[in-house]
Amino acid sequence: MNKQRIAIDMDEVMADFLSKAIQTYNQEFNASISLDDQQGKHFVESVPEAHLSEVRLYPYRPSFFRDLQIMKDCKEVVTELAGKYELFIVSAAMEFPNSLKDKREWLEEHFSFIHWQNIVLCGDKSIINADFLIDDHSKHLVNFVGEPLLFTAPHNINENRFKRVNDWQEVGNLLL
Amino acid sequence: MNKQRIAIDMDEVMADFLSKAIQTYNQEFNASISLDDQQGKHFVESVPEAHLSEVRLYPYRPSFFRDLQIMKDCKEVVTELAGKYELFIVSAAMEFPNSLKDKREWLEEHFSFIHWQNIVLCGDKSIINADFLIDDHSKHLVNFVGEPLLFTAPHNINENRFKRVNDWQEVGNLLL
Repeated sequence: MNKQRIAIDMDEVMADFLSKAIQTYNQEFNASISLDDQQGKHFVESVPEAHLSEVRLYPYRPSFFRDLQIMKDCKEVVTELAGKYELFIVSAAMEFPNSLKDKREWLEEHFSFIHWQNIVLCGDKSIINADFLIDDHSKHLVNFVGEPLLFTAPHNINENRFKRVNDWQEVGNLLL
Repeated sequence: MNKQRIAIDMDEVMADFLSKAIQTYNQEFNASISLDDQQGKHFVESVPEAHLSEVRLYPYRPSFFRDLQIMKDCKEVVTELAGKYELFIVSAAMEFPNSLKDKREWLEEHFSFIHWQNIVLCGDKSIINADFLIDDHSKHLVNFVGEPLLFTAPHNINENRFKRVNDWQEVGNLLL
């Protein structure tokens, strides 16, 4: 029997985009936003109107995605999942042309056991043919052909339409 | 009813990679390979052993994919298809990190009506969920979930496992 296939999102699931955004913002605007302020909202909602245009450009900056931290327990659980499932990393990166190479290189550095054939940079994830999709964005989960799993992030804590995994330990408990 | 979805490959289907490779090779090695010499084989098979290592690096060169010519009638037929189908451009670009941004920009320049949400840069195309896949590589067609259409290229003229479209006029005749 073929292995089941899991599609895994990158930002806020494997890679800690939010912490880098907060850190960059605090540094450049001499501010003191904390992760705890983010519950129930998107990062741009914590930022004064006057700073929005600059903050919205973060993901367009060359190298912005290249040094993101790996989410807690992600490496260990993904390594174990790779033995039991066929894994595809699926990131809606196409909006940000400078992120494409960064994301490819980030995966090569931290998850070298994932072959380039199993990396997908896209926009609309309804194009993805897999058994599971682990993602923090409900817009990607809602039209997914397989079983959607919502990975908890501050912006999605009030979403209740999907089975939820709060962290990588929970992903492991569910799928391993 | 939802529109049917067509996934369309880039190199040798929308974009003329082969002509650029031949032209580059002839220029740099003072050679005179022609497109007519390519029937039934891959480009690397027309090149002397001693030049192979250099030729294999072409797709890794920054900007190599940025100025490819559009295949004959492609723009016109894709424009018409966009009115009747949901189109996704799906390129197995992940092997070549420098091609990722080039391909995104090439599409933006020549096919600006195709939204970034509908661009997919990947490796293994069995991850693609669509009704049709137009591709010159049988390795991508063989595990595709929908109806595979083999787009004729010199290297695939002896392939007979798939319905074949010889050019964009034939794609139009079949799907419009």
